[in-house]
Order: sequence, then structure tokens, then C-alpha cells
Amino acid sequence: MASAAPEAEQEQVVNPWEVSAGKGGIDYDKLVDQFGCQRLDAAIIDRIGRLTGRAPHRFLRRGLFFAHRDLNEILDLYEKGEKFYLYTGRGPSSEALHLGHLVPFMFTKYLQDAFKVPLVIQLTDDEKFLWKNLTVEESKRLARENAKDIIACGFDIERTFIFSDFNFVGGAFYENMVKVARCVTYNKVVGIFGFTPEDHIGKSSFPPVQAVPSFPSSFPHLFPGNDQLRCLIPCAIDQDPYFRMTRDVAPRIGYQKPSLIESRFFPALQGENTKMSASDPNSAIYVTDTNKEIKTKVNKYAFSGGQDSVELHRKLGANLEVDVSIKWLNFFLEDDDELENIKKEYKEGKLLTGEVKQILIKVLSEMVERHKRARAQVTEEMVDAFMARRPLPNMFG
Amino acid sequence: MASAAPEAEQEQVVNPWEVSAGKGGIDYDKLVDQFGCQRLDAAIIDRIGRLTGRAPHRFLRRGLFFAHRDLNEILDLYEKGEKFYLYTGRGPSSEALHLGHLVPFMFTKYLQDAFKVPLVIQLTDDEKFLWKNLTVEESKRLARENAKDIIACGFDIERTFIFSDFNFVGGAFYENMVKVARCVTYNKVVGIFGFTPEDHIGKSSFPPVQAVPSFPSSFPHLFPGNDQLRCLIPCAIDQDPYFRMTRDVAPRIGYQKPSLIESRFFPALQGENTKMSASDPNSAIYVTDTNKEIKTKVNKYAFSGGQDSVELHRKLGANLEVDVSIKWLNFFLEDDDELENIKKEYKEGKLLTGEVKQILIKVLSEMVERHKRARAQVTEEMVDAFMARRPLPNMFG
Repeated sequence: MASAAPEAEQEQVVNPWEVSAGKGGIDYDKLVDQFGCQRLDAAIIDRIGRLTGRAPHRFLRRGLFFAHRDLNEILDLYEKGEKFYLYTGRGPSSEALHLGHLVPFMFTKYLQDAFKVPLVIQLTDDEKFLWKNLTVEESKRLARENAKDIIACGFDIERTFIFSDFNFVGGAFYENMVKVARCVTYNKVVGIFGFTPEDHIGKSSFPPVQAVPSFPSSFPHLFPGNDQLRCLIPCAIDQDPYFRMTRDVAPRIGYQKPSLIESRFFPALQGENTKMSASDPNSAIYVTDTNKEIKTKVNKYAFSGGQDSVELHRKLGANLEVDVSIKWLNFFLEDDDELENIKKEYKEGKLLTGEVKQILIKVLSEMVERHKRARAQVTEEMVDAFMARRPLPNMFG
Repeated sequence: MASAAPEAEQEQVVNPWEVSAGKGGIDYDKLVDQFGCQRLDAAIIDRIGRLTGRAPHRFLRRGLFFAHRDLNEILDLYEKGEKFYLYTGRGPSSEALHLGHLVPFMFTKYLQDAFKVPLVIQLTDDEKFLWKNLTVEESKRLARENAKDIIACGFDIERTFIFSDFNFVGGAFYENMVKVARCVTYNKVVGIFGFTPEDHIGKSSFPPVQAVPSFPSSFPHLFPGNDQLRCLIPCAIDQDPYFRMTRDVAPRIGYQKPSLIESRFFPALQGENTKMSASDPNSAIYVTDTNKEIKTKVNKYAFSGGQDSVELHRKLGANLEVDVSIKWLNFFLEDDDELENIKKEYKEGKLLTGEVKQILIKVLSEMVERHKRARAQVTEEMVDAFMARRPLPNMFG
């Protein structure tokens, strides 16, 4: 039948494979309510500072990690002397990472250093094979290449296990996958992930693979006899559906629910409407970009909240809400005072867009240079070492 | 809406989890047409005899293995000197096997001996965990117990690899699972297996697990660099749906389609309407039954095609079409002449049902005794040896 109903206003869509904003950008408040997670408030951020004896990471201070699930439980236990482990991951679909990809790893490194806890990093090469037009070999190769960029973020090899699904699925990990799968109906994954009956069964088979690193028994070489060890997952909010599912299943199979700490999306150069896309090279700065490329991309594409003319800008000042350079500095400029000063002067029209972009270019160039130097030092042997299935005797040390 | 339509005549249902006959028992001709497999005719059975230099197994001579897919291709290649491998399996849902469970293994042993080829045996403990109310540990334990009964059938340890999914899924095997999954839509598995949206995702995830032992690259320790080695699967016809799916996918991922040789169901004592059920102990003879239990079950439950009185029986003779003792002798009495003689005399009323049952009891008791003796000699070390992930250097020798 023909429908006479008017088209609905575009809804925002946020799931692991699609992030599209409604009118006016991603509504994070709405996401928190819709997903049923909790807001990261000042009290919990202060508490993290007190417990770790160091200033909370700028991603926390500036609300870039903005939501959580049961983080207080992890902190309660930590305060009593009980440790936990961290779990994060990456779907290796591209050769080079962009800066948005680094955000969760920078933050995870901070958490590892601050809490002195072990970390497992899942490279979902199987997922990328299933969703993208890649061969198994290419997916595995990308996983290993991405591992080098991840290692370059400075993780502690005494506390970090990196694995690719194609290499690691099996044994206790597979047992947990099957346990999770038995608890989740097809209707449920359709509701959570939006699969259709014409999608291949690899898609509906995959969620348990991303679920089970939340359970310490999936890593018998790391956590033998410690099946109730708590897990904290730092991730972007688009990964929440996996862990809503995981938290629903966990108590039914005798496991602890993982806690989460969740970030906003790192905006594209063109603006805050979606997360940065690996498929549009001009929407992102890559860790392989040259200084010249960084300079060109920022100058050419970074959406400006400044006014159309210098005269008007001096008079009205910049709109910080939409200015991408400010948003990016918010992520990457460490000094709070300096950042506040830039924002104030830009808002008042004392700083021009071009001047703010120069500051950003400097920050990004230094960061990318630092990453390149670190990555150049990552050898194949180091990758093997991080990915070796081995106990980590000093992981809580 | 209320329906005024009359109830349809009961359709026969044959899939890996349900076998129920329509009116008048399983219609195997209809199955062959419906599934699209080929009939095993006298020419191909003769050919097997010629190629192997020994009489075809009684299961072939008597039409108990009655259908195939591309068996001629396997024989064509074999004739030219190319080998293949055998793949069969079992879902370990019960402690003790019944005689129906032994049928594919007896036949597979014959094929292994006659063609001198390697064999992989999959124990789908994950499947049984997913479909039955078992723990992972219990599923794994049953797999190991069943392996002992399978080993007792006399397989050649130099040519046989037995594995349980919970122990073996991973690596190349998992890569193939994911490759298969990417080629099969959810709609497709619904069409083949009849899953519903309220079924858990473990069910729609499982078919690739049973598919991939059809591909030699799933066993890199057995068939390295031999990815195009052909595979022949002896199984009961209810497993055909898995391999229809597998054969559909194989060429799309660069692999050979497996060939099949498929059996009828071993009838329950009560008659030919379904295959024997592990859940009704009086429908089956178990390999653990005592001589007394065998005698009692056969005498009490084996459906008779004889007449109601001796007088009538002497006059009219037995109806062999429905007589279970004759059907079972057809499976297990080796001597063709003796069998023909029994059938003739029973049909003419010269033999009484009780006398035929005595013959059957003797055959079964000897077979079960032989199995018990063989199984008693299977040690834990032998199970470990058959299940060790190892090369089989003499597997084609």
C-alpha cells in the first residue's frame, strides 16, 4: 500500500558500523538515555584522580569520555585493593590509523599507567573480513600492521596482550563464544544491531566474539582461576550495543558484567556530524601524513567557526561550538590554561581562524612525528612479543 | 483469522534435529528428489567393488546406503590414482551409543580399509551444548566417551584424526568457518534448517562448523598444501542439509565440493517410522546392553510382520516390509545366502517370528559383545593418541 505519511525527521543512527547524526549533530544526551548508560560526572572524575594519585586525563577533564556503565563498582573494588583488567580493541580495516583511532588507545594507555592493570587488545580481523571486501590474509595483515601503531602508543609489554581473532579464537575463548551465543536470540541481535535476513550469518555470529574478551576465563593463560576478575572497557559510544548485549548475558552464564567508560566521536575535519571516516582521506589526519599534508588538510578542510571577514570576526568573534580546530585542540592540547586562553581569545575575535589553525597544525605535527618515531621502532619481534600467548606475571605489579 | 481449511496430511520432516515420517514411513525416493541427490545404483556399487578389489559392504549390497552426491567424481579420480579423505562425525548427546549410531562408523571403517584413505571424525560437542541442556564440561566429557566407542569400531590410528569442536575450533578451521559464514544469508539457513527468529544465534552460527571439515585446508597438520584434496562424507540422509549448504559455498571460496554417500535411517525396534531415538531406551539396543536386555527388548518390542496365530502364519507367512527383525538382520547379518534363506522361509511361513528373533538376538549379542570387548581395551592414552593434532605420514600408504 502507498503511504501518505510525511517522512520522519532524520533520526540519528549510532551502531558499530554506522554513525549518522540527526539534525544538529550527534545528540549525546539522547544516546545516554537511549542506551541506558550513565553520565560521567565531576564527582567520579575527581574520584579517579584521588584513587590514581594523578590528574585525570584531559579526555576526562574535558568531557570527551562522557558516559559509563558501573564504573563506580570498579572504583569501589579498586579502593578496597581489588584489581581489574582493561579490554579494548580495533577492527583493522585500514592500513594507517587516523587520529580518531588513536583516541581510545591514548586513553587506555593512561588507564593502564594510572591503575597499573593488565590490558587485552582485540583485533577483530574476522569482523573486518565479514563486513568488508577483504581476504582473510589481508585482514590478518592489516591486524598486524595496526598492532604496530597500537604498540607505538606506548603500552607496557609486561601488562599487555594483543590478539587477532583469526589467530586466537579457540579453546576457552570459543567455549565462551558458544555460551554467549546460546543466550542471545536472533531477534535480539536484530534489535540491537539492525541485521536483516538477507545479511550473511557471519554478522549475527560475530557479536559473541566481541563479547567474550569481557570475561577473564577467555584468557586462561592470563587469568587462571580468576574467573570473577572485573573488566573495564574504554571505547567509543558506538560500541555500546555489543556490551549491552554482553552485560545482559554475563550473569546468566555465571560471569561478572563488564564496566564501560565511553567516549564521544572524534569529529571529522569537516565538522561534528559524524565520526571521522577512514574511507574519506580528507576527513582525517593519518598517523602517516606528512607535515605538509597536515598543514594542507587543516588549512583547507578544518571547518571554521570564525566569521566571513576579518572585520566581522574582530567584532563578533568565533563560534566555538562548530569550530573543528578548537574541538581537535580540546582532544590534543594538553595544557588546560593555554587551551582556555585560546578559546577565550578566539571567541572574542582576538585570534583569527588562521592563527588557531597554526596552533593546531603545530600540535598535530608534533604528535604525528612522535607517533612515527615510536612506530619506526616497533619491530616484528616486538609485535610477536605483544601477541604471544603467555602469562603476564607482573601484570598487577 | 479462523481458518476453514482442512488439516494437511502430515508431511515428512527430515533435518539434522528432526526426523518424522509421513503416513507409511519415510519416503526415501521423495527425499532424494526433494534434496536433489542421486540414487546409488548397481553400476556404481559394482564399480566400488572393482576399484577396491573387495566385495562392496553389505550396507551397499542391500541398499542401506542408497543415495550420493558426486560419488562418481571421487571414483573417477581414485581410478586415476588420486586419493581423497573421509569425513564423518557425531553429535555427542548421550553416554552410550545405540546400534543406529554405529552404522555410519561401521561403514566408514569399511571405506577407510577398502580405499586406504585418511579420515577425520568431528565430535560436535558445541552443537550439543547449543541444542541440548548440557554444560560445556558435560558436552566435552560425552565427546570423549563417544570417541571411545568410535575407536572401538576399529579405525586405523595411522589414518584417523578424531577431534572435538570445543578443542579444535581455531586457526585455519576458524578461518574457513568465517569464510563459509560470509557466503550464507540468514534467510538461507532458515530455508535449509528451519530456524526461527526466537532461536538463539548459536543455531544459525553452527552450520559453518559442520561445513568446514569438508575442506582439507581446515586441517593444516594433515593436508598441508593440499587444499584441493577431495572429501567424501558418509552420513545418514538427515545430515544432507549441511552439505547442500557446504557444496553451494565451496566453489565461491575456491574449494572443492565434498561428495556424499548417504544412508537410510536405522529403524527403531517399534518400526520404520523414524530413526532410533536415544531418548526412548526401549526403541534401541545400546552397545552397553546386557545379553538379557537385548533378548528382552527384541522379544518384547521388535515389531513383527508375522501373523496373529501360528496357523495363520504357516498359511500366509510374514510381511517382511514391516518386520523389524528382518530389517535389523538386513543391517547386521553378514551372510547374504543365510539372510535370503531366512527371508524366504519367514515369508513362506516356515519360520516363526520367535525363531527369527532368536537369530537376531544371537547376531546382536555377538556384535555387542565384540564391541564391549573392543571398547574395554580403549585406554585414555589411545583417545589422546587419536585426538592428538599430529601429521599422519602414512595416511595414504
